[in-house]
Amino acid sequence: MTKKSQISDDSSRRAFIQQTVVLGAGLTLSNPVSVFSKGETAGKTVEPIKAKGYAATDESGVLSPWEFERRPVGDDDILIDVKFSSICHSDIHQEKGHWGKQVYPQVPGHEIVGVVSAVGKNVTKFKVGDRAGVGCMVDSCMECESCTHGEEHFCDRGETVFTYGYPSEESPSGITQGGYSNKMVVRDHFAVHIPDQLSFEEAAPLLCAGITTYSPLMKAQFQVGDKVGVAGIGGLGHLAVKLAVSKGGEVYAFTTTTEKVADIKSWGATEVIVVDEDYKNMQAFVKTLDYMICTIPYQFNVSPYVACVKPQGTFTFVGMPDASEITLNNLMLAFSRVNFNASLIGGIPETQEVVHYCADNGIRPQIQKIAAEEINDAWEKVVNKEARYRYVIDAATF
Amino acid sequence: MTKKSQISDDSSRRAFIQQTVVLGAGLTLSNPVSVFSKGETAGKTVEPIKAKGYAATDESGVLSPWEFERRPVGDDDILIDVKFSSICHSDIHQEKGHWGKQVYPQVPGHEIVGVVSAVGKNVTKFKVGDRAGVGCMVDSCMECESCTHGEEHFCDRGETVFTYGYPSEESPSGITQGGYSNKMVVRDHFAVHIPDQLSFEEAAPLLCAGITTYSPLMKAQFQVGDKVGVAGIGGLGHLAVKLAVSKGGEVYAFTTTTEKVADIKSWGATEVIVVDEDYKNMQAFVKTLDYMICTIPYQFNVSPYVACVKPQGTFTFVGMPDASEITLNNLMLAFSRVNFNASLIGGIPETQEVVHYCADNGIRPQIQKIAAEEINDAWEKVVNKEARYRYVIDAATF
Repeated sequence: MTKKSQISDDSSRRAFIQQTVVLGAGLTLSNPVSVFSKGETAGKTVEPIKAKGYAATDESGVLSPWEFERRPVGDDDILIDVKFSSICHSDIHQEKGHWGKQVYPQVPGHEIVGVVSAVGKNVTKFKVGDRAGVGCMVDSCMECESCTHGEEHFCDRGETVFTYGYPSEESPSGITQGGYSNKMVVRDHFAVHIPDQLSFEEAAPLLCAGITTYSPLMKAQFQVGDKVGVAGIGGLGHLAVKLAVSKGGEVYAFTTTTEKVADIKSWGATEVIVVDEDYKNMQAFVKTLDYMICTIPYQFNVSPYVACVKPQGTFTFVGMPDASEITLNNLMLAFSRVNFNASLIGGIPETQEVVHYCADNGIRPQIQKIAAEEINDAWEKVVNKEARYRYVIDAATF
Repeated sequence: MTKKSQISDDSSRRAFIQQTVVLGAGLTLSNPVSVFSKGETAGKTVEPIKAKGYAATDESGVLSPWEFERRPVGDDDILIDVKFSSICHSDIHQEKGHWGKQVYPQVPGHEIVGVVSAVGKNVTKFKVGDRAGVGCMVDSCMECESCTHGEEHFCDRGETVFTYGYPSEESPSGITQGGYSNKMVVRDHFAVHIPDQLSFEEAAPLLCAGITTYSPLMKAQFQVGDKVGVAGIGGLGHLAVKLAVSKGGEVYAFTTTTEKVADIKSWGATEVIVVDEDYKNMQAFVKTLDYMICTIPYQFNVSPYVACVKPQGTFTFVGMPDASEITLNNLMLAFSRVNFNASLIGGIPETQEVVHYCADNGIRPQIQKIAAEEINDAWEKVVNKEARYRYVIDAATF
């Protein structure tokens, strides 16, 4: 879509919104605002938003087309016409019930970009026509210490609302519905701006894969020239390599897929280690890394990876395995003297930061564009380590 | 034993050593020194050292009296007449085979103090009559970066020799034999000085329980007034409380044993939390601690403990559970934002440091003196959390 056509779109949408405001104002008199109010006040759309997407209906891991409704656009909400939405391994884990029982139908997807097509009356962060992205969360209390310090994903009241499958009284389906869809309603604070120099499709993976690797890499505070390990070179890992290289790290990438070596080197990695079954190829790297980030999204033997980090160094686990369990040998951990931690995603300010950082520094995910009907096939490829490196769904095909 | 009688003892021993030196020198000609040489050079005793102790003979966890031989005193060795040796939960784990198959008979014990009764010709660190202590290790390469930097327990060549049950060509029984015994032969570097103001029996527990808690507490670099959690108040935990209080920490102690509360408060803990089955009593402490050290020596649900540490804080695991496994929920770890690490023991310089620190600052373990024949009963009490807080065996009763 060209900028011109966006503007033209915006004008008609703005007219629509203005009409809605008038209608909404009338309703205010008889409907006091409540936390879960639906469309009572000015600036909101009154009616739920009709959306089309792909949903899981059970734990089979097979998605199918689904027409559903999103909540009306509230005073603090924006409506996004989704342009692209990308596929994260977490989508697959969650829909297959690997992390616990799910409510279906459920639309996955938490790497979402598009154009703002309506805004609630309190919204100042966005205007209609703005490019916007949404990641792994869509709401939180916004009052606690964590929320007011840019760590909404760690809401002290436990009110972080994740993008899909999360209980939501406001949502007509009872749960939040994700980004494999053509429309998204979200509280303005939880969307970030997408600079013009980033294409929609290349921006999408930054909303989860980008922030999830950027946040711990920044917290690690590695110095230029430090040796940074990246384990697992998929959607997250390939961005971790690019980000760490860009930040001055000497990057050592660990993959089990020989076919990825040339790609990884092309992103600036100093060395690519193809991990063999006996971990023999890793022996030479024991105690050599200042820091390591691990994106492997399943249960595996963590010890040989941790052993590659220097004593007193840090190892960050960002993969989300089945049952969310990691088993560590405490003797190994003691001998390694490594600090082990896990990282989830990142807060909204930092999500905006990584989007700008990538836009400004030429960091782009390596993507494969697909249509909605290719989602099931793409999921299989993700599981089989065949993604190169992020599937991005064209929302026009929903 | 008075100082006078020690001197008298020393004189006769010195005479014995001098005779041995002459004999040893003669042997040198025909026996070149090798890494595992036995009694060939001057300064060594020629004959193996006859010792009495208590040994495990199988995985039953029952010990029985055993007479055995230790290696002759080598050029770099000292012979210690053991005065007291204390009981660590690790002794029980290892002898019961919880960490892997063992060679028997095996004498456990790695909290050993006594009086030096012979020294090899190269030994300058000790003289006969000195008070000496031995902890969890008795040798290492002494040449690598770790060994030359006071971290002999992390010998880069993997040549750290632990005090008992470790393969040893020098030992007549083929493995190292520990401190539940009346005699000990050890390379001088691996013994530390015991200042006069510490009694033998109160010094013993410092050699493992003391250093194992002191080392991570010092690495944590907590500030005066910081909130320090100690989980598991047994042999290690009770020293951790005392050390942390002494270093200016505001100590929060977590125990499952109500009967320990008064003791723990008497050591200066700010608060004692009696952990209930549902962890409800821990709720109020979520995200309150700057640091936590956990000494619980079995597998347990780590999550509620980790959750008590503030984001970006550190949790150190020093307990050594069955199978050496810790299972973590990576979501919990991510939400906690806590750095998780494990710590083994400490190096020899730091072991000497904790002994001096305790001697100088009035820190004494709370001990129960027992005779050798009470060891089996004491082991049961340790397992049943009935120790208050360290059993110390009088070596005169072996």
